[in-house]
Amino acid sequence: MRMVDLIIKKRDGHELSDEEIKFWIDGYVKGEIPDYQSSAMNMAIFFRGMTKREIATLTDYMEHSGEVIDLSEIEGIKVDKHSTGGVGDKTSLVLGPMVAAVGGKVAKMSGRGLGHTGGTLDKLESIPGLIIAKSKEQMVEQVNRIGLAIVGQTSTLVPADKKLYALRDVTGTVESIPLIAASVMSKKLASGTDVILLDVTVGEGAFMKNMDQARELAKTMVGIGKSLNRDTVAVLSDMSEPLGFAVGNSLEVKEAIDSLHGKGPEDLMELCYTSGSIMLVQAKVCKSIEEARKKLHEVIENGEAFEKFCLMVEAQGGDVSYIRHPEKFEISKNIVEIRSERDGYIKEINALEIGISAMKLGAGRETLEDVIDMSAGIVLAKKVGAKVTRGDLLCTVYTNKTPEEYLPVLDEIRQAYAYSDKEVKELPVIREIIREA
Amino acid sequence: MRMVDLIIKKRDGHELSDEEIKFWIDGYVKGEIPDYQSSAMNMAIFFRGMTKREIATLTDYMEHSGEVIDLSEIEGIKVDKHSTGGVGDKTSLVLGPMVAAVGGKVAKMSGRGLGHTGGTLDKLESIPGLIIAKSKEQMVEQVNRIGLAIVGQTSTLVPADKKLYALRDVTGTVESIPLIAASVMSKKLASGTDVILLDVTVGEGAFMKNMDQARELAKTMVGIGKSLNRDTVAVLSDMSEPLGFAVGNSLEVKEAIDSLHGKGPEDLMELCYTSGSIMLVQAKVCKSIEEARKKLHEVIENGEAFEKFCLMVEAQGGDVSYIRHPEKFEISKNIVEIRSERDGYIKEINALEIGISAMKLGAGRETLEDVIDMSAGIVLAKKVGAKVTRGDLLCTVYTNKTPEEYLPVLDEIRQAYAYSDKEVKELPVIREIIREA
Repeated sequence: MRMVDLIIKKRDGHELSDEEIKFWIDGYVKGEIPDYQSSAMNMAIFFRGMTKREIATLTDYMEHSGEVIDLSEIEGIKVDKHSTGGVGDKTSLVLGPMVAAVGGKVAKMSGRGLGHTGGTLDKLESIPGLIIAKSKEQMVEQVNRIGLAIVGQTSTLVPADKKLYALRDVTGTVESIPLIAASVMSKKLASGTDVILLDVTVGEGAFMKNMDQARELAKTMVGIGKSLNRDTVAVLSDMSEPLGFAVGNSLEVKEAIDSLHGKGPEDLMELCYTSGSIMLVQAKVCKSIEEARKKLHEVIENGEAFEKFCLMVEAQGGDVSYIRHPEKFEISKNIVEIRSERDGYIKEINALEIGISAMKLGAGRETLEDVIDMSAGIVLAKKVGAKVTRGDLLCTVYTNKTPEEYLPVLDEIRQAYAYSDKEVKELPVIREIIREA
Repeated sequence: MRMVDLIIKKRDGHELSDEEIKFWIDGYVKGEIPDYQSSAMNMAIFFRGMTKREIATLTDYMEHSGEVIDLSEIEGIKVDKHSTGGVGDKTSLVLGPMVAAVGGKVAKMSGRGLGHTGGTLDKLESIPGLIIAKSKEQMVEQVNRIGLAIVGQTSTLVPADKKLYALRDVTGTVESIPLIAASVMSKKLASGTDVILLDVTVGEGAFMKNMDQARELAKTMVGIGKSLNRDTVAVLSDMSEPLGFAVGNSLEVKEAIDSLHGKGPEDLMELCYTSGSIMLVQAKVCKSIEEARKKLHEVIENGEAFEKFCLMVEAQGGDVSYIRHPEKFEISKNIVEIRSERDGYIKEINALEIGISAMKLGAGRETLEDVIDMSAGIVLAKKVGAKVTRGDLLCTVYTNKTPEEYLPVLDEIRQAYAYSDKEVKELPVIREIIREA
C-alpha cells in the first residue's frame, strides 16, 4: 500500500477502506508517513468529505493510536463535555462544578487555546499553582472524591490527533467537518467517559459559520458516538458574539467565579443550565430535564457549585485564596476603555474580531510556542441588543503590551461593533439540540 | 503574509496576487515554507485551478527561482522537445538524433521517471558510463559540435520546480493542469531553447486521461510560450496503450536503437516523424513539413540518425559498444512469458497498469530514494488491434525481484489486457496538433 495512492483515491472522490485509513493513521503516528502526505490527504478530505463509515473508522483508529483510558474505577456514569471552541467560552469552569455539585461525575480532559479561540487549560493555569497534568490514578481518585477533575490530555492520549491537529492548523484544513468530528470524538472516546455532551458553537467566532455546517458537524459526532455506544448529545450554541462578557484567561476565571456566585451573564448561564441538565439526565443522576434544571439552580443559589470549584482548584494544587478573593488576580498594566462613538443599538459584536484582538493583546497564541499573558483580554460592558448613547462604555481592554503594539488593536475592536438605529433583539444562546445522527 | 492564509485563500477559490505567488515560491525554495504547506497548496490548486494570470506568474517565478541559461553561443535556432510523460515513451532517444541528423540544434534537458512513467535520464543512464550532468559550457560545445545533447537540469536550474515536482509526485498532485503547465514551461524557458515542441500524451497511461484535459493543457502551455515569445507547438499523442513495445530502461534503449536502425514500432516512428518535422520547420532548417518529413526518413535509412546517437553517447562518456552491440546490456535474472488465455482481438493494453506493473518489477521508483533496476520491465509482443489465439505470447516480463514479489504483478499485467471477439482498429498515435492558445 502506498500513501500517495490513498491520497489520489480520496482526491478523486472514492471511499477509503478501513485498512487504508489504518495504514494512514498508523503510519503517520509512527512517522513513516510524512507531514507533507498527511497535509495533502487532509486537503483532499476537505474537498471530498468522508462517508459515515470512513469517519467512524478514522475516529476509531485515532482513538486507538495511543493510550485509551479506563475510568471504570470511577463509581457511576462518567460525563464529559466538549465545546468546538469559541471566544469568551468559560463554560467548562462553571458547568463542571454545577454538574458535579448535583452529583454528576465529571471527568473532563480539556485543550489549549489557539488562534482566536481560548482553551480551558490556559484559563485554569491562570490560577496560581494549579496543575493540569494528572495521572489516570490521580484523576480517578479526584473524581471519586469530589466528583470533578479538569485536566490536560496525557501525552500518550490520541497521538494521531495531536499530530494531525497541529498540521491542519498550519495547512488550511482546520475547517473540515469529518476531520473536526474525528478529532473531537477520538479524544472524548479515548479519555474514558461514558456519556458526552457536545457544545457545537456556531457563528463568526466559531469554526462553524452557519447553522447548516454546525448541524452537519453535530449530527456527524452524535452518529460516531451512537455507533460506538456512547450516549452523545449536541447543543448548538451561538458564537456570533463572545459568550458572556470576559475574553482572556484570568478575566474569564473571574467571570466564572461570579457566575458560580449566581452573578453570571445570562447567555453563559442559560448554556450551563441547558447543557448541565442534559448531562445529568444522560448520567442518570436526574430523571428529567426539569428536575435537573431545578437542581442546577439550587447548587448555584446555595453555593455548592462554587464550593465544588474550590475543591477542584485545591485538589489540583491551585491557590484557593484567589478563588475566594478574585481581586488577588494580577491586573494588566494598561487598562483602556472603549466608548461608543454614536447613539443606537448594538447589532453585532464580531466574536472572531474580538478573539483575534484579544490574542493580539496577549491573551492567546498565534503559534503553539507563544506564551500567554494571563491577565490580558477584553471585558465587554454591553452585549448585542443593548441600547447605547454616545460616550457609553462598550468594553475595557487589559494588556501589558506597549501602546505602539496595542493602539492599532483598539481600532480593530471598535470595528468589531456594528450598530442599528432600530431596536435589536438579543441573540438566543441555544440554537438547537441534536440527539439523532 | 502567512502561508496558511494563502492556502486558505486558494482553497476557498480566490485568485492569488503576483506578490502572494512570489511569497510562496521564494519561501519554498529558501526552505522557509515547509513541504507540508506547499503540498496543501498544491492540493488546493488541484481542486480550484488557477487563472491564466496566476499560471503565467507562477511559471515566471519558477523560471527565475534559479539560473536561466543563455544558449546564445549555440549557432542557429535551438529546439527542444518535451513530453508530458507516458509508458514506454523513448521518443527523445529516437527523435533527438533524427532531428540533429537533419541539421537541427537539439539542446534538450530531460527529467527522471515519475510513478508509472519513465524518464529519459533514467533510460540514458542504463548505458554504462553515460553522464547526464553537464555544465552549460559543455552543453554548448557538444551541441555546436554534434547538434545534440540530452542532459539533466543543472542543479541551479529551476530549483522551485525540482522541489515542487518531487513533492507533487508523492502527494497526489501531479495531475493538475496549472502545475503541469508551469512545471514544464518554467524548465523549458530556463533552459534557453528558442523553440519548443510539446508532446502532450493522452489516455490511461498519461496524466491527461481524455482529449479535453489534454487540449486544455496544450493550449495552456502554448499560451505561456506565446506570451513569453517562444514559438511553441503541441502534438497530442495517444497514451492509452504503451508507446512501442518496450517498457523499462535498458529495454527501451534497445528499442530506440532498433528504431534508429529503421526497425522501430509503427506508432513510435509516426510520432517521431510528425514531431520531428514540426521541430525542423520551427527551427527554420526545413521550409515545409513535407520536406522535413522526407529528410527524417532519409537519415533513418542512411544510418545518419543512428550515428548521431552514437556520437551523443560518446560525447557524454557512454560506452558506445553497447549501442553498436545491444546484446551487451545486462538481462534480468527472471524472464517470464505471459500468454493469451483466449482467442480474439486485443482491445486494450492499459498503459497505466503496465506502467505500474513495470515499476513494481523494479523499472521505476515509488519514492525518489528508490533505486531503479535498469534491466527490469515488460516487452509487449503485440499491440492493440492484434489478433490472438489462446497460447500466443502477449508480453515478456523481465525482473530481478523474487517470485514472491513478482508473481502478483503477473496477474496485474494480465488484467491490463481486454479483448474483443470482433476486429479492433489500431489506435492512431497522433490525435491533434495545437498551435494556438
